[in-house]
Order: sequence, then C-alpha cells, then structure tokens
Amino acid sequence: MKILVFGAGQLAQMMYLAAAPLGVVVYAVDVNSREVINPLSKVKLDMSIEYAISDVHAVTAEFEHVPEDLLDLAEKSTKLYPNMAAILTGADRVREKYVLDTHNVANCPHAFVSDLSQLDEVLDTLGTRLIFKASRDGYDGYGQWRLSKREELEQLKHAFASLDLASVPLVAETMVAFDRELSVVGACNASGQIACYDVAENLHYRGQLHVSVAPATDLDEATKRQALQMFTTIASALNYIGVLAVELFQTGGELMVNEIAPRVHNSGHWTQHGADTCQFEQHIRTVLGFPLGDTSSKGVTAMINIIGCTSFSRDLISIPGCHLHWYGKELREKRKMGHINVVAANYRDLGNKLLLLLEYLPEEYFPLLRTEAQRLIAFDA
Amino acid sequence: MKILVFGAGQLAQMMYLAAAPLGVVVYAVDVNSREVINPLSKVKLDMSIEYAISDVHAVTAEFEHVPEDLLDLAEKSTKLYPNMAAILTGADRVREKYVLDTHNVANCPHAFVSDLSQLDEVLDTLGTRLIFKASRDGYDGYGQWRLSKREELEQLKHAFASLDLASVPLVAETMVAFDRELSVVGACNASGQIACYDVAENLHYRGQLHVSVAPATDLDEATKRQALQMFTTIASALNYIGVLAVELFQTGGELMVNEIAPRVHNSGHWTQHGADTCQFEQHIRTVLGFPLGDTSSKGVTAMINIIGCTSFSRDLISIPGCHLHWYGKELREKRKMGHINVVAANYRDLGNKLLLLLEYLPEEYFPLLRTEAQRLIAFDA
Repeated sequence: MKILVFGAGQLAQMMYLAAAPLGVVVYAVDVNSREVINPLSKVKLDMSIEYAISDVHAVTAEFEHVPEDLLDLAEKSTKLYPNMAAILTGADRVREKYVLDTHNVANCPHAFVSDLSQLDEVLDTLGTRLIFKASRDGYDGYGQWRLSKREELEQLKHAFASLDLASVPLVAETMVAFDRELSVVGACNASGQIACYDVAENLHYRGQLHVSVAPATDLDEATKRQALQMFTTIASALNYIGVLAVELFQTGGELMVNEIAPRVHNSGHWTQHGADTCQFEQHIRTVLGFPLGDTSSKGVTAMINIIGCTSFSRDLISIPGCHLHWYGKELREKRKMGHINVVAANYRDLGNKLLLLLEYLPEEYFPLLRTEAQRLIAFDA
Repeated sequence: MKILVFGAGQLAQMMYLAAAPLGVVVYAVDVNSREVINPLSKVKLDMSIEYAISDVHAVTAEFEHVPEDLLDLAEKSTKLYPNMAAILTGADRVREKYVLDTHNVANCPHAFVSDLSQLDEVLDTLGTRLIFKASRDGYDGYGQWRLSKREELEQLKHAFASLDLASVPLVAETMVAFDRELSVVGACNASGQIACYDVAENLHYRGQLHVSVAPATDLDEATKRQALQMFTTIASALNYIGVLAVELFQTGGELMVNEIAPRVHNSGHWTQHGADTCQFEQHIRTVLGFPLGDTSSKGVTAMINIIGCTSFSRDLISIPGCHLHWYGKELREKRKMGHINVVAANYRDLGNKLLLLLEYLPEEYFPLLRTEAQRLIAFDA
C-alpha cells in the first residue's frame, strides 16, 4: 500500500521508516517545490501530485500549514486523513479556539484582534500580561508578541500596524502562570477507537521543545483522566483519524489546552523506543485502517532534541538504551537536527543516563538537560 | 556516512532501515545484475560498484555467497567488514570445518569427499546415517543428500557422478540426534569487544527456519557459557568485525556447532523488538567503528517466518507486542516473504499470543506454531 504525505521533513521521513516494515511505501510532497519525492533519500519521483493522490491509499500531512489548494485536492479524493477541517484547526488559532470553546475544553482566556481599535478593550477584559499570536502562519518570524504592562501597548500597536489583521487576526491570550507543560499524543481510527500514549512532560527553552519525559512524573490519576478526556473531546469534535497531539498547561490539578497539533508530534518521538508501537507506525496504521497498535510504555523515556548543533560525540550511543535519530538536514541556527531517545527502568536510572549523555554533548545547546537529570534522580530517590 | 552491502535482499533492506536514524545511508549491490541499488525502493543508483566502494566508509555483505571478484575488490579497498576470509568461511563448508577443528570447537563428526572412491571409507569411519552437503554454493537444488543405510550408497554414487567433486567437495556429516537447535548472534568490533544477544532456540521444518524464541527456554548457565565461549573462539579465529551468527546443536549439556553465518541472521530478527539494539543497527555500528549497542532483552520474543504465503490477515498487528516485517517480494514457494516478531512479558504470555496469532494465519504455512505456543504456555505454568 502507499501513502502520500504533505511535507517532506523529518516527520515524513520517520513515517517512511516506520511504514516500510508493514510493506507500506510513503511518498512526500515538498510543498514549496510541489514535487513528489522520496522522504528519506529526497530523490524526486517522476509523478505529479495529482497522480500521486490517485495512486495512493491515503493522504496525510506532517504539518498543518499545507497550502489549502493541496488539502482541497486531497479532500476531494476522499483519501485525506485527518480531514481538511481538522488540519486547518491546527493551522488557525481562531478555528482552534472555536473548537475548544464550543466543546467546553478549558484553554487560556483569550480574545481575537482583527482591528487595532479592539486592543484597549482586550486589555480591559484580559488584563495586561498578554501574549499575542498570529492566528495563521504567514507573518515573518515567530508571529508572537508579548505585553507585560499597559505602557507597552503603543509600541505593539506600531508593530501591528503593518499586519493585515482583517485577514489574519491575532489571538490575545492571558499569560498563564502554569506549573508545567504536558502533552497527550494518541490515535483515533475510523471506528472512533482511541489509543493514547502515556502523558509526556515537555520542557521548553526560548520557545522550542528541548526535552520530553514520558510518562510524566508525579501525575495523579485525576489529572491523567482529565487529560485523556480533553483529548477524546477534541478528537471527537474534529472527527479525527490519525495521530493527534494536544499540548496542555498544568496548574495544580487543573489543565488547559495550549495547542492542538493535528499530526505526529515532537513530544511523541519518545514512543520510538519507549512504547510498543511508535507514533509514526500508529499514524500509518490509522490512516490506512489497520488495527491500532499497543501504546503501553516500556520503562521511562526521555527525548532530547538536538537543536542548531552538529558537533557532539556520536559515541553517546554507547549508553545503554540511548538511540540517535539524525535527520540529515543542513545546519541552521535553532533548527532541529535530530533527537536522542533514552530509555531506562526508572526515573533515577533515566536521570543518571542523562548525566552520562552530557559527557558527549556541548551543554550550551542542551541548557535544560543537567537540571532535568538532577530532578529525575531526586524524584526517584 | 555510507555503507555498501553485497546482496540486495531483505537483510540489506533491514540494514538500510536501521542505519537511517544514525544518518547512515546504505547502498546495495544486486550481485546478479551487478547494479548498485537502493535496498528498499530497489531503484538503480547511477554509480558503478567500483565507484560505490570508493565512496562509502565500509563494505559488508548480507550473504556469504558473494562472487569472489567482488569480495576481492572490497578487500583491496580495506573497507570490507567482516574480512573476506571470514565471509568465505561461511560460504565453504571445508573452510568452516577447518576453522572449527583447528580451534577445537566441537562440531558434527565429518569427512570430506572429493572423489567417489572415498565414499566407502567415509561410511566405515562415520557410520551409515549421514548427511552429505555440497561444500559450496553452485549445485542446483539444496545441495544436500541423506543416507540412512549402506544399501542406499550406490544410488547416491549415481547422483554424485555428475558433480565436480574435485572442485566442490562434499562434506559428509554424521546425523546427530540432537535435542534442539540454538543460535548465538553477536557482534565483535575492531577492539575485540564482543556483545552477544541472548541465545535463541530455533525450530526448523523441512530445512527452513520457522520459529525462533529468545531467550531460549530452560538454558542452564553452563550451557550458555559454553555457547558464548564457542562464539568468542570463532569470532576471534576469524578476526571478525560485524554481526556473526553461530548455529548450535544441543544434546543434553553438550553443544556442537552446526554452521557459521558471517552476517546478520534470520534467528536474530527477534532483536528488532526484543532487544535494546537490533542486530541490523549493531552490524552498522560495528562495521563503521561506532560503539557497540546494548544487547539486553526486553521480555521474551518469538520470531515467526512467513514462508511462501501472502494470504493472511494483516490484522494480526492488533495483538499487543506483535509486529510485522514485510519484505515486499514476489511470492514463490518456500520463499521467505516476511516475519512477525511477538514480544511478551513471559513465556506463558508469549504462548498465548502465538495462539492468538494463529487466528490470523493459515496454519498449513505455520506448521510448528501451535505446538510451540502450547509448549511455551506449559513451560511457564
């Protein structure tokens, strides 16, 4: 069988590798060049996107910012999983908030800004510690602006003046003083069956995911149930088929959704070694209508992103349970170059392995790793 | 980094898949067409074998019957791992017996036949329950003949008359009434470090491996030590670098070597889900001089070959811990089409999963599976 993936980055690549043992071939579309390519070798394949769609059994996406004409084409073929509306929900914060609010899923207090004149009222309602996010891709940079006091508003208005807010509104969100970020990655199939992995705990640094640990430490049953309930509500609201990721903020026993990612997710990479069926195989299974795989964890796992860095010792793979995933991309600042999965029997072992790992890595590129290692060791002590 | 593999079957394919996450590209040589190809897509690559050898960091083989001129080319580049003599030892039963005898490694009582006139003496020495094996590939069919009583000798002489015994001698072996077949798969690196997987127990049917279970049930420490000692002696005798498999016959507490396979091995496929580092990644690691990976087992695993059969329900992957590896080859009688790995917490669970598996498989192609499932269940009861 064959699958076409919109997007030709590392997620398509890992889908390709996970699909091969099932006898499934994955093609990828480079959405910039609009060429159909082999997602691993990047060799151009001699077929049009239209032909590829007609030739495959399912079409999916490795990221949500797929040009809408391509999603349209795929949706019309009735082979697109997840469906176009679900993918666009991940690509558009207005749609995302609409889904969450309509289905009473807790999320950050927010307002939409489609005109500069609305800003003062937004501050009156939400307060003055805010984060403004472009609702869709398309602005240069990260498309996020922070406000910490009312006096900064004029400066922000200046920055927003050049934006086409009517077409791409901003979402203003209260800055939430959450305890930690969690994520639920899981799969839904056509029969509505859902299989989630253990909840992961995610550590960010300057806006990028650096470390995930799964199962998350110290997660009580009630919070876990709450997380799975939120996942289920969202998946069902989106008529979702495939792997879905839901990012959560935890504050005490309360969760709120930060973001919905309608795809395999960086915070699910740990499943490659830490779960019976990895998220990439699970996605392939669900979009092709194969049975769901077992999602149970094997020990505890940390996923460490390698960001903007190629100069480390590959000998890190000498650490038992330590596995490298290298994407083969050209080095760029802040670019995800690969990741490392480390599996251990318990958190203490995991922490000790992470300390060992640091002997092979330039610590400036892994600023959270030592603290996290120490935390894990202390947690189990 | 890049590796060239002589042979373009499923073993090269699985090396390719295991190498990719390490950022290693694997090319394969179809030794029949002498083309360099992508071992998964089978797409012809635009390079000669000579160029490929000069371009890669290591050359290896997925099978031992590589034409000697190709091995010569690779050996001259000083990139061939394991070395040519080690590969040829697996390809030539005369060399193999010589290595075993020289290093006092127990093996089946045997004699060489390079002329029909030697046959009577062979029977006088070894008895009349014998198996004759062509010492090298090159005869049609399986190259094996059995003798169960002296009266059959004339008929055999007739069969042997057309063979060029002077060039390709036969090895006559006593038929050993062993209890079971085991195998040790392990890796040796350039520093002489050795890392073996748990010993596997192998079930054959009509000359083909059907099921492996690892770790082998009921293997006492002394026998395990004996197996590892034999492996170490052979690896060291061959100056071996890479993954090596040694097939053993067990009779009571005694082991004898049946065969040496200088490569990744079918009886090591279980390591893909049952061990921390699979044999394919381990082979890639050793031939490139990367550190050895952890070989410890995760639970107990069965590997079931899918032979000469494509008509089964792919829904078998709904069984937790059950993973399909499909090679994508054209169906032929007795051809290995794929395999299934089943991981469980203990032998009883494993046996129960194998019984479940039979609900998805046509039992006539898996004649040993039910008995083995029942044996495993009883073993742990």
